[in-house]
Amino acid sequence: MRIEIINTGNELLLGTTLNTHGAWLGGELATLGLRVQRQITVPDGDAITAELREAMERSDAIIVTGGIGPTSDDITREATAEVLGVELITDEAALRSIEAFFAHRDRAMAEENKKQALNPVGADILPNQHGTAPGIYAPPRMSGDRLCAIFLLPGPPGEMKPMFNNEVVPRLKSLADVTDDQQVRTLRFTGIGESDFHNCLDDTLAQIENLEVGYCARPAEVDLRLIGPMDSIVQAADIALTAFPNECFSHTGESLEEVVVKQLMEKGKKLSLAESCTGGLIASRITDVSGASDVFTHGFVTYSNHAKQQLLGVNEVLLETHGAVSKEVALAMAEGALARSRADIAVAVTGIAGPTGGSESKPVGTVWIALATPRKRFAIKKFHPQGREYFKQSTSQNALDLVRRTLME
Amino acid sequence: MRIEIINTGNELLLGTTLNTHGAWLGGELATLGLRVQRQITVPDGDAITAELREAMERSDAIIVTGGIGPTSDDITREATAEVLGVELITDEAALRSIEAFFAHRDRAMAEENKKQALNPVGADILPNQHGTAPGIYAPPRMSGDRLCAIFLLPGPPGEMKPMFNNEVVPRLKSLADVTDDQQVRTLRFTGIGESDFHNCLDDTLAQIENLEVGYCARPAEVDLRLIGPMDSIVQAADIALTAFPNECFSHTGESLEEVVVKQLMEKGKKLSLAESCTGGLIASRITDVSGASDVFTHGFVTYSNHAKQQLLGVNEVLLETHGAVSKEVALAMAEGALARSRADIAVAVTGIAGPTGGSESKPVGTVWIALATPRKRFAIKKFHPQGREYFKQSTSQNALDLVRRTLME
Repeated sequence: MRIEIINTGNELLLGTTLNTHGAWLGGELATLGLRVQRQITVPDGDAITAELREAMERSDAIIVTGGIGPTSDDITREATAEVLGVELITDEAALRSIEAFFAHRDRAMAEENKKQALNPVGADILPNQHGTAPGIYAPPRMSGDRLCAIFLLPGPPGEMKPMFNNEVVPRLKSLADVTDDQQVRTLRFTGIGESDFHNCLDDTLAQIENLEVGYCARPAEVDLRLIGPMDSIVQAADIALTAFPNECFSHTGESLEEVVVKQLMEKGKKLSLAESCTGGLIASRITDVSGASDVFTHGFVTYSNHAKQQLLGVNEVLLETHGAVSKEVALAMAEGALARSRADIAVAVTGIAGPTGGSESKPVGTVWIALATPRKRFAIKKFHPQGREYFKQSTSQNALDLVRRTLME
Repeated sequence: MRIEIINTGNELLLGTTLNTHGAWLGGELATLGLRVQRQITVPDGDAITAELREAMERSDAIIVTGGIGPTSDDITREATAEVLGVELITDEAALRSIEAFFAHRDRAMAEENKKQALNPVGADILPNQHGTAPGIYAPPRMSGDRLCAIFLLPGPPGEMKPMFNNEVVPRLKSLADVTDDQQVRTLRFTGIGESDFHNCLDDTLAQIENLEVGYCARPAEVDLRLIGPMDSIVQAADIALTAFPNECFSHTGESLEEVVVKQLMEKGKKLSLAESCTGGLIASRITDVSGASDVFTHGFVTYSNHAKQQLLGVNEVLLETHGAVSKEVALAMAEGALARSRADIAVAVTGIAGPTGGSESKPVGTVWIALATPRKRFAIKKFHPQGREYFKQSTSQNALDLVRRTLME
């Protein structure tokens, strides 16, 4: 099945907004065994019409995001009717649903919102649970010598993603000839680099038939992507897991925070966090996971020395003797967090995110990560000098991985 | 000048890697007053040839990233020679430079790397300071009824970006008619919706000559993008600021956390945070800003009721009488955070992120946000039922905006 994605929006071409829709849709389709053949970004306005016409001649399905809002440059709906050669008519149910959306929020509905209920004749309305713009599904129609279906989805991610999952996926599945057994599986690793894979695995994996291997390096993480028939994937995954058994935190694409929250739930353990340089990022990642409230109790964001002393009971002498970024202070923070919460495991981080604050003996990027349980305590040192954002992300990854490994014991 | 960008790479279409090249190039070109008309992502391999041919008929310049490496699916160089109708010949200087790259690193050069020195007849080699693949510049050549130039750049960002700056920018400037003074400016607003702009401003802004207006809605934020000559932009910005003077938090594209940290620094004030439902996200946003350590002292992530009592001194009776998600508890959390830190302002949030935990009187999405200073205390209620991620992001935005407004007084 040949699928093309068209994303509309000037902000995407001006570089003020990263096109995350293209990647998200590509990833979701890949998990269905479907591949995107082409992704196009066009400005708001007229350009969509020619693009749709061209894409229809090459594709079995087109997914368009954006351009179905109420304003004058939102013309995806009109462009679709034009290329299909049909009229737009008001869908009464959709209109009532838009009116209800505003009524529910005690807001007046603007006249322009009415145009969001327009639907090309023969197309289906896709309900939008999270916004005013309903989506549209135009079932396969002959274009040139092929049948092509069109999906129009809203631009805001909070509206687009649930509509894709609820409305597009089932339709694509029934459209697609999902008889071929191309599967995609992502294994996620931390604690090793991409070059470790190249050095240890590339030659072996290259011998597996019909297998496509891809890597994606992220802060303190490498994702291994395997595409092919299921038996090739299983064979490759076995090889990778044998080579790096402790470094693989997910066989199914879950994030590290999802894995850790699940482990804590299964073991009935509670976690507390003491964060200096990550400034709450670890806690925020843990609480991104639904159900975190069952396993996460206290987060101490102790950015200042005063807070480290006051909230965690870190000894002033320790801070003066070793400095805030030291093994001793990291351990004292973890112990303080453990003692002050009712948690079973506490993790603490203290480091220098930069760009300022470094010294010769403790350059920007230096970080100590400590873990404490009632039975043991230890600390590790890491070095992430690649900038503030990368530093925070990598350090949070290292800290979560310490928890994961401890819970595996 | 009509510019198109073509990004190649399976990983971009599979969603395992975000296409940051497209946005980066778009942003850099915008600062030169140049606009991208279209961005296309295609898989590695053959697809590039047809794409280049089509793009040449529509464009004055094409920038291609990726596909000039040494492997068999790197065929951008060959595709370019094909669409230009010329031969590829080895550029001896480029070959020596690739050999030197390997020699300098004490690595043996593989036979495949030799093909990276191939250059379409009539094109220029663009030196690569950071990798093996030289870029290519094919000067304008007639295609259909227009002249089109082609730039081929390497895929790795560390190689692509310096080559763009050093080699592409000067050539584009001399190609482009950069006599027009198109500028871009982004104003960022919170506390109003996109429809407020449409209702109040669209008609007035439409009367300004040569002005392009765009909106981008984010969680609890609307960005207004103005493109045109500087005097039109200033005129439009004045109108928007007169209409929404308190809602605009940045005239220059800064993030809300950057604005708040700068305000705190200027006023010599310190902030502390008590977060339940945002789970550390507000603290993490504040600490994303370099210099946050001067203004941010304590962050209390009190996810459990026990933590709210223990760390913030929230009265158990309050929790029992009103529930954790209530005005009373939010205020008590803010007061507790203020009293327990040496901060001048404390903000607290408590709400129901979902998907579980809601009730009829307090549905998922309900959140109370309180602010306390030594002189005043107040709380506001918000409702963000659009999912956990959107909830956390919107709530953190509301909380930071309370701080911003308080510091403006």
